[in-house]
Amino acid sequence: MGKVVVDLSMSLDGFITGPNDGIEMPLGEGGERLHDRIFRGKPDRSGSSPRQSAIDVNRAVLDEAFETTGAIVMGRRLFDIEEKPWGDEPPFQVPVFVLTHRPREIIKKGKTTFTFVTDGIERALERAQAVAGDKDVSVSAANVAQQYLQAGLLDEIQIHLVPILLGQGRRLFEHLGTESIELENTRVVEAPGVTHLRFCIMR
Amino acid sequence: MGKVVVDLSMSLDGFITGPNDGIEMPLGEGGERLHDRIFRGKPDRSGSSPRQSAIDVNRAVLDEAFETTGAIVMGRRLFDIEEKPWGDEPPFQVPVFVLTHRPREIIKKGKTTFTFVTDGIERALERAQAVAGDKDVSVSAANVAQQYLQAGLLDEIQIHLVPILLGQGRRLFEHLGTESIELENTRVVEAPGVTHLRFCIMR
Repeated sequence: MGKVVVDLSMSLDGFITGPNDGIEMPLGEGGERLHDRIFRGKPDRSGSSPRQSAIDVNRAVLDEAFETTGAIVMGRRLFDIEEKPWGDEPPFQVPVFVLTHRPREIIKKGKTTFTFVTDGIERALERAQAVAGDKDVSVSAANVAQQYLQAGLLDEIQIHLVPILLGQGRRLFEHLGTESIELENTRVVEAPGVTHLRFCIMR
Repeated sequence: MGKVVVDLSMSLDGFITGPNDGIEMPLGEGGERLHDRIFRGKPDRSGSSPRQSAIDVNRAVLDEAFETTGAIVMGRRLFDIEEKPWGDEPPFQVPVFVLTHRPREIIKKGKTTFTFVTDGIERALERAQAVAGDKDVSVSAANVAQQYLQAGLLDEIQIHLVPILLGQGRRLFEHLGTESIELENTRVVEAPGVTHLRFCIMR
């Protein structure tokens, strides 16, 4: 069986979106900078453009996550916000299980299916793992990641740490309660504009 | 003139202390783990002890910060909490300027002097820079760092990122307002138990 992972871009001050994220603005105000740094790089202090090799490093890390992911569990809020922007060919190309209290029929778009699961995070994970086989199950976004983390069901966290301070927005790590959680940093991939940090959760 | 820097250990979820930090417990509940990981390492998953070389890397990074620091600006709260634990030989060995609304006579302990500054962060920085010469001025802790950051007076941030989730405590980055701040990641030093990340602030 594969691992249960969180894989998200985060600002140095801990945000995965800017403020006021929603259907009109999926990444919130300024949140698109998180992705700009990774996909388009960012001129350095000398004003020169980022080297192609830097962008290639970022793509390789993201491609690796894509290849190792066999299914996805996501929150209904994320689905509702992104359904329209994803269009007819959502980028996942694997089965997606959407946690929700509001039942809905299975949706098939391109190579991605969205199944709506109303019986909790454990059941959603079981279903995702059943289809993922040896591949990983990726869970997102912040609220869902926090639930799996607190339930002790998460194995790994990959953070694409982007050197910006957004100041406001949606934090990846909050509402985690008072018990501290020990991690081990298992990989650091350095690229201009972003540092890819991988952690496993120690139990 | 040297740079104005922040140099602090931070958990992956953004805390520089655990909850309920104060005179009785300077690093808050569980906050000592931030330092344990750096100074004493942490057994890995196999149960083996950290290699001495890993601890040496951490010491080298911390020694470098010590060597390049010519003066310190700190908040009165931090001073009040740590005054007793520091004892007669505080670890700084450079002039320290304490931001406060409550005047107090200069204190000299070992090779460290504490000067209490009541006329604001700009004036405290000027006085610190005057004695630091070509060396850096280090500002701490969270609240003071936030003030210098918002005033546009900070040049660099070094984070010793410790792979634990404390869940609660004092965040390094908050109250920063709505304007996002762009950084450049200028160095990554990888060591088991901690990743040392250095950023310069782009203006």
